[in-house]
Amino acid sequence: MSTRLDRQIAFLNEADKLKSVVRGTTLCDASRYENSAEHSWHLTLYAMVLADQAGPDVQIDRVIKMLILHDLVEIDAGDNPIFGSHDPAAVEVQEQAAADRIFGLLPNDLDNDLRAIWEEFEAAKTPSAQFAKSLDRFQPPMQNLQSGGGSWVTYDVTEDKIAEKVGAKIKIGAPRLWDYARTRIAAWFSAQS
Amino acid sequence: MSTRLDRQIAFLNEADKLKSVVRGTTLCDASRYENSAEHSWHLTLYAMVLADQAGPDVQIDRVIKMLILHDLVEIDAGDNPIFGSHDPAAVEVQEQAAADRIFGLLPNDLDNDLRAIWEEFEAAKTPSAQFAKSLDRFQPPMQNLQSGGGSWVTYDVTEDKIAEKVGAKIKIGAPRLWDYARTRIAAWFSAQS
Repeated sequence: MSTRLDRQIAFLNEADKLKSVVRGTTLCDASRYENSAEHSWHLTLYAMVLADQAGPDVQIDRVIKMLILHDLVEIDAGDNPIFGSHDPAAVEVQEQAAADRIFGLLPNDLDNDLRAIWEEFEAAKTPSAQFAKSLDRFQPPMQNLQSGGGSWVTYDVTEDKIAEKVGAKIKIGAPRLWDYARTRIAAWFSAQS
Repeated sequence: MSTRLDRQIAFLNEADKLKSVVRGTTLCDASRYENSAEHSWHLTLYAMVLADQAGPDVQIDRVIKMLILHDLVEIDAGDNPIFGSHDPAAVEVQEQAAADRIFGLLPNDLDNDLRAIWEEFEAAKTPSAQFAKSLDRFQPPMQNLQSGGGSWVTYDVTEDKIAEKVGAKIKIGAPRLWDYARTRIAAWFSAQS
């Protein structure tokens, strides 16, 4: 019979697989693609350092927990690069099934608690979730600016496409961060032409 | 002139280098060595999932922040595997210099805030820091049990050595986790002989 602690450890061992999910963005030095576990860590640091960009109703401790959990479903559903083509409805179904399986490894109380945090992030309706989502969209362009274009080059995207797919989301939870990114993205595109 | 936000982003870009600091422990599937950024993420998840193992004076939100920051100094000072040989006093000097440089990239208020969290972790005197330290010692044996021995094989260590170097530290902040690990470590060693 498995104990409570056995179930907690089984979940933590399963979570280790997030270190093998590869994203569309590289490290700043372009040496390799980033994985979703280290990306999640980096975002928690973004939340700590950029907390002054959050609106008054954002709970940073809750944001950090969302960012720790936000990509776990990719263990089953994979990463869907922002500029890649995928069917959002199909992804949603895959991610819900992944959440059932992965959070379901936990004892019931923890399953409920962690699932609720992840669902809040996914729904993107609370100020904390909107700020977390904005950071998740803000980090990749910061990496691309360092690495020489990264996923903008891979997916051959335009400035307008970035504004549509990335800027629109950053603006919701962290408008000043989009101002900051937009200016630098424009300069990067100018330098290419 | 660099703005506040420029300094925040410069720090976050510098932190990206933690993804390239390689540890002595592998992933659970033994496919490669773990890096310190994804390790830090994994530990924040340990804190969320194993919060019921913390004593009453532990603040889990503070523990999570400590774990996000705890290895950043390795960008300059490198990782020192627990079973490797190194001079603790020399490491301490290197890590303090690394903290000066890396946290010093931030605006002063954030430098002070984040440095204080890291210093609290390093000092290992508060209940929150002791619990964070215990998780940092507890995760590697959990990985080794999955990967076929990992750093125990690399460094050819004995059960007694693990109890001395790892168990003694886990016991301070999370005694039941050491009970859990000890039993399984003993079974693993028995199976090798």
